Amino acid sequence: MTITMSMLETYPKSINLDRAKLAAAIDAINACAQACTACADACLSEDMVAELTKCVRTNLDCADICTTTARVLSRHTGYDANISRSLLEACATACKSCGDECARHAGEHQHCKVCADACRACEQACRDLLAMMS
Amino acid sequence: MTITMSMLETYPKSINLDRAKLAAAIDAINACAQACTACADACLSEDMVAELTKCVRTNLDCADICTTTARVLSRHTGYDANISRSLLEACATACKSCGDECARHAGEHQHCKVCADACRACEQACRDLLAMMS
Amino acid sequence: MTITMSMLETYPKSINLDRAKLAAAIDAINACAQACTACADACLSEDMVAELTKCVRTNLDCADICTTTARVLSRHTGYDANISRSLLEACATACKSCGDECARHAGEHQHCKVCADACRACEQACRDLLAMMS
Amino acid sequence: MTITMSMLETYPKSINLDRAKLAAAIDAINACAQACTACADACLSEDMVAELTKCVRTNLDCADICTTTARVLSRHTGYDANISRSLLEACATACKSCGDECARHAGEHQHCKVCADACRACEQACRDLLAMMS
Repeated sequence: MTITMSMLETYPKSINLDRAKLAAAIDAINACAQACTACADACLSEDMVAELTKCVRTNLDCADICTTTARVLSRHTGYDANISRSLLEACATACKSCGDECARHAGEHQHCKVCADACRACEQACRDLLAMMS
Repeated sequence: MTITMSMLETYPKSINLDRAKLAAAIDAINACAQACTACADACLSEDMVAELTKCVRTNLDCADICTTTARVLSRHTGYDANISRSLLEACATACKSCGDECARHAGEHQHCKVCADACRACEQACRDLLAMMS
Repeated sequence: MTITMSMLETYPKSINLDRAKLAAAIDAINACAQACTACADACLSEDMVAELTKCVRTNLDCADICTTTARVLSRHTGYDANISRSLLEACATACKSCGDECARHAGEHQHCKVCADACRACEQACRDLLAMMS
Repeated sequence: MTITMSMLETYPKSINLDRAKLAAAIDAINACAQACTACADACLSEDMVAELTKCVRTNLDCADICTTTARVLSRHTGYDANISRSLLEACATACKSCGDECARHAGEHQHCKVCADACRACEQACRDLLAMMS
């Protein structure tokens, strides 16, 4: 059991969503943030960095958006569905863009392959959560 | 001239948006982030904190979302309009919710009054930028 | 294997530290950030929130510092030991304070118990990494 | 008067530091964060990006550390001097490294010149605040 689920289990009030599914989504989002931060840095260390600048930038955006989305989803006091939904839409959008960009370099750079997979999993997790919320 | 505009003026490639308007929007978003972080903390120090927990939570969300939005808008390399637009929608949504919540306490707490005004200005800046982008 | 280790394994240049130990430290730091964000929110939902305001605040600080520390440690391009070391000192300090504060409430609130444990593990991971770096 | 000072003036309890000096420091730290985020992106758009990868990386670290430091300094509930001091040390260290790195490219790139100045001002603000705290 991850720390995310351990903490969700100790939340003292009710939560509208299934806690196990929510924990899995938060974990996928945090994993994507970690992958994107590392992929941006790995791209900076490639000899062909000049061809990877869009990848670096999209990774930085995706890391920031995922980190913020995981935080918002980890809060349940005074829940506001509008904020969660619009942020999940933005997170899915960023993961789609970043997954596509990393996939373009996945044949040459293993870090882009691993990161693209993390982005795909995160995008799916965001879309599943959005479906659960409606 | 703010540091945001000074930096935008030195960006070496073209930017699709009017730089002065973009700088003003980023400054409004950063100001909102600062206000929300401080308002969350000020609420925690009020004797009636138990009545302000939704305000604290919404402030925390809004601060995180504004900080991330300002970062994304400050990047121009490999620009992706989909990411900017969906994040601006989320930021406007968070500012609307946070502005409404702070406004409910603005008569009693001056920090909620100042923060509500910052949220309104930020929401408007996000909507203006969205209109400029379409 | 976590995403952190998967990404470290694909970094294209050399890294001064043992990759498995570095990955374990980053994972402990990210786990602490997640625990602190969730504990701050759980405290806000407790009926006795007025007695937990210092805990909320320290959780917020610790979450922010851990998130930033995990990011810095995930970058290897143009490594600067001074930045890593001073930030690890700050992270260990924040985890010590937050672990102590959460431990004071661990008997009453299970989220504080889980969070205190995460803070202790993170503090130790930071100190181990500092020892490895010197 | 900046939003930082407006919010500090409305904080309902006492603050150990001079509020005007604290507001000025937070504003210098936030300005540095903004400059570093923009400078990292501007470097990515330079044709000679391959020679600027250490500058990008240090900018990313400095932006993250400054953002977190400004947040911690904006909280006064349950103040813990150890956290503030160790984080200010880390922030001054990051600003020193980033200012030095940007200064190396200041003759060629105006964004590095503006960013180096912001880093120097932020480093000084952190050191002044540390002196005020002791």
